[in-house]
Amino acid sequence: MSLGEFDLIAKYFDRPAQRAALGIGDDCALLALSPGMQLATSCDMLVEGRHFLSTVAPERLGHKALAVNLSDLAACGAEPLAFTLALALPSAEEAFLERFSRGLLALADAQGCELIGGDTTRGPLNICISVFGQVPAAGAGALLRSGAQAGDDLYISGTVGDARLALEAFRGTLRLGGGDFESVRAAMEMPQPRVALGLALRGVASSAIDLSDGLLGDLSHVLRRSGVDAVVEVDTLPRSAVLQAQPLAVQRLCALSGGDDYELLFTASPDCASQVSAASRIAGVALTRIGRIVPRAGGRQSPHTALIDADGHAVIHVAASFDHFRT
Amino acid sequence: MSLGEFDLIAKYFDRPAQRAALGIGDDCALLALSPGMQLATSCDMLVEGRHFLSTVAPERLGHKALAVNLSDLAACGAEPLAFTLALALPSAEEAFLERFSRGLLALADAQGCELIGGDTTRGPLNICISVFGQVPAAGAGALLRSGAQAGDDLYISGTVGDARLALEAFRGTLRLGGGDFESVRAAMEMPQPRVALGLALRGVASSAIDLSDGLLGDLSHVLRRSGVDAVVEVDTLPRSAVLQAQPLAVQRLCALSGGDDYELLFTASPDCASQVSAASRIAGVALTRIGRIVPRAGGRQSPHTALIDADGHAVIHVAASFDHFRT
Repeated sequence: MSLGEFDLIAKYFDRPAQRAALGIGDDCALLALSPGMQLATSCDMLVEGRHFLSTVAPERLGHKALAVNLSDLAACGAEPLAFTLALALPSAEEAFLERFSRGLLALADAQGCELIGGDTTRGPLNICISVFGQVPAAGAGALLRSGAQAGDDLYISGTVGDARLALEAFRGTLRLGGGDFESVRAAMEMPQPRVALGLALRGVASSAIDLSDGLLGDLSHVLRRSGVDAVVEVDTLPRSAVLQAQPLAVQRLCALSGGDDYELLFTASPDCASQVSAASRIAGVALTRIGRIVPRAGGRQSPHTALIDADGHAVIHVAASFDHFRT
Repeated sequence: MSLGEFDLIAKYFDRPAQRAALGIGDDCALLALSPGMQLATSCDMLVEGRHFLSTVAPERLGHKALAVNLSDLAACGAEPLAFTLALALPSAEEAFLERFSRGLLALADAQGCELIGGDTTRGPLNICISVFGQVPAAGAGALLRSGAQAGDDLYISGTVGDARLALEAFRGTLRLGGGDFESVRAAMEMPQPRVALGLALRGVASSAIDLSDGLLGDLSHVLRRSGVDAVVEVDTLPRSAVLQAQPLAVQRLCALSGGDDYELLFTASPDCASQVSAASRIAGVALTRIGRIVPRAGGRQSPHTALIDADGHAVIHVAASFDHFRT
């Protein structure tokens, strides 16, 4: 089997341009934004062994590669428009490409996000997607990390920790029954980007971020940008039934520092509580209040998150956030 | 030495946002387009051993990674605005990053193209840049591959073939003197994207493409999209003095099928000859007429390029274009 680069593109990725003014096949893709909107863009690079395991089904890999990018749009409250795919492959394996493109394009179609260009080359497996969305340039515009205010409530969507639990099961540090394993494995391999929720939170949330590196680490980005601290009530963290069956230490590690959750973490004024509930209904996603934003403790430069249990007692947690160059 | 991912970004790549509404450090970057403009975007992924050699100086690698993307904007006649950088590195080597970012950002500053986001991860060396520009949504808009008309003149900018000559010298298939080698090596490692020329050709050129995979291969894309054929007068191909000192077969291989030239190949009506000359002066880039566009030969689906010498005799040339999955 030896498909050339241009054949590959044509066979698996070239579809007629829909929203884009010009899609695949020229030097650039062209994309018009709606009046009054600005471009929101993000890119993520996925490398085998670091962002996915060699055991992942190609359909799921295609899904996840786009999902993690759509999650960044969701965190900004942006409407998805289009994406580009750059792909380095050790060899042009049709079976892989057929399945990968199927998973990728199924999510793209479900989210109305059009593949408008890219690049393919031979090399160690590497998937790099850039995603394009639009947000209003003024008014209730993009959700940013920098808007959290002391007094705001702190929320997360869905549940957290299952992806890390699956990773630990793959690593052999714990064992799960077959059904439980498949359930958390799906959370790790098929994250659902919270695009509808991000849109519903425009004008409601004061800040937002998506959970990719672990709740505590991602929260610290919001706190640093906003110049505030936080209190998190660890017993309120929404966890799946599978995770709740684990020892408490495992639950807290996975929920607080797990990574790969792709839920939204956001803040909102208590005055907006009913609008937060409405956003949950509109998007069809459960939301849980997990704590609150407090003023930055006097004199300190770096942000601090206090962890407390249901009785208000301090909880000691030392696991660090995931960092690609430290772990 | 162990810099974390966030430290790396801050130290070498995080600069205050200029044109962008929001730069590095949030989930998405935000970018407003000027009224009446649409987004032009392209991405290129560079892999060691395929797009660059391990011997390349990191400054030059940084330059080239952005240059090849800017070249795509140039081919569309788009004004550069911004770019994102996704980088997989085997280790966080500060010496490499300092030099790589210096070359990258020097070209970015020279072209007014702002780094607005990206991703870093550990993995086999891989550089993926997405570039963003703007072109008018109507009127004298983007230059496309699809606009060539029978009767148009065919032009290229600068000279072609030096990058391939350098590659052959690296491969040891030929030898060059020290000064000659450094000259063609610079062509390979420091291509100059023809951004100003692309802008000057809006409303003048009927089609355009940048030369990345070799003149004949890239020309065939224009012919296919435009439904026409071409005649190329091979003795008119602009070549450097170093290349002209090589045997004729080497000259033709390098000029016709060399790859990595990053010059613009474009077509224009003979009625626009004076405007083409003006564009050359405005952009400060030499332009050479190398042939003409002719009607698609009856009944054939695939495009054909006839090669002729100064006497009008057919020239036989069999070297294929560069294809990442065939070579």
